[in-house]
Amino acid sequence: MEFSSKLLETAVNEMSQLPGIGKRTALRLVLHLLKQPKEQTSFLSQALTSMREEVRFCVSCHNISDVDLCAICSNEKRDHQIICVVEDIRDVMAIENTGQFRGIYHVLGGKISPIDGVGPNQLNISSLVEKVKSGEVVEIIFALSSTIEGDTTNFYIYKQIQDYEVISSTIARGISVGDELEYADEVTLGRSILHRVPFEKSFKNN
Amino acid sequence: MEFSSKLLETAVNEMSQLPGIGKRTALRLVLHLLKQPKEQTSFLSQALTSMREEVRFCVSCHNISDVDLCAICSNEKRDHQIICVVEDIRDVMAIENTGQFRGIYHVLGGKISPIDGVGPNQLNISSLVEKVKSGEVVEIIFALSSTIEGDTTNFYIYKQIQDYEVISSTIARGISVGDELEYADEVTLGRSILHRVPFEKSFKNN
Repeated sequence: MEFSSKLLETAVNEMSQLPGIGKRTALRLVLHLLKQPKEQTSFLSQALTSMREEVRFCVSCHNISDVDLCAICSNEKRDHQIICVVEDIRDVMAIENTGQFRGIYHVLGGKISPIDGVGPNQLNISSLVEKVKSGEVVEIIFALSSTIEGDTTNFYIYKQIQDYEVISSTIARGISVGDELEYADEVTLGRSILHRVPFEKSFKNN
Repeated sequence: MEFSSKLLETAVNEMSQLPGIGKRTALRLVLHLLKQPKEQTSFLSQALTSMREEVRFCVSCHNISDVDLCAICSNEKRDHQIICVVEDIRDVMAIENTGQFRGIYHVLGGKISPIDGVGPNQLNISSLVEKVKSGEVVEIIFALSSTIEGDTTNFYIYKQIQDYEVISSTIARGISVGDELEYADEVTLGRSILHRVPFEKSFKNN
């Protein structure tokens, strides 16, 4: 791609560093900004810079937060004895949206993946183990993705907490609500039969 | 979407102002920036701001340029008597990539579209008409998109320059190279027959 302006080229190059944004999309986005009032670009730049420079993580659960202790961890109405372990802050948002969980979270910041150079030390695992050791935790719910990396991470953490008095569980795997049986993959269908729930329970939402 | 951080929320909101970027994609992009070194965010913000604040447009063809007269307009090897009229600077880049055009460009900045509130006065039309009036132009090639708005814009400009001694042409419409005939739409196929080219000419690239 040949650019008639160095400024434009630099902007497109930086924009195309973002995941899933190729050079052509980057050019489209940058030209869009050019057609908008200058304020839009300065608001965007300012928002990104402030976010990157000033954002903090909750000292307890490692969720993104503007204060030391996030709104969930500092909420006394939530059950601090039940911890849901997730990879990412997006997972926290997804679970919060369901309105089904009244405990607190622990954000690992990823999963163990030797291929990507992510070992246990890069993740927020030790602080979780410390919480379990302190004896304040009754249940740990593992809500990682159902992949080899997710399972490895689950297992690694489980090994470290199994000797303590804490209930470990994983979120249920099964056929999605609204999905047809015939299109489900074998493993999921198999697990859904293995982990079947009593009929009366399946109607309840809580 | 519930955010645990105001800084994050603002960044996602600003990012999702961009065309084709929804809230979920914006969140993914912003969280990606959070995982990268701070420099990446500051480079991106800086590049966007500089571009928006400092970018200039060629005084002659209205292409984006860092100097008053763009590299194409100031290139003496190019034929200044042939002007290719395009909507957008992306079209300039696309035509330049073909290596088939040795004239200069005139970037309108859009096309006449009453629905979007774009009239002839919002476009760089008068400066094009002035160039024709000055008598320095031998040929005007219209290379706008083949839509109602594109045709309207073509026609509007043509009306204003038809009394001057200048050749007007439009780029050829036809079956794309590599395309199967049976999948072509009727209008395109019809035009490709109407505007057929002598057989010997069809082999030449220039």
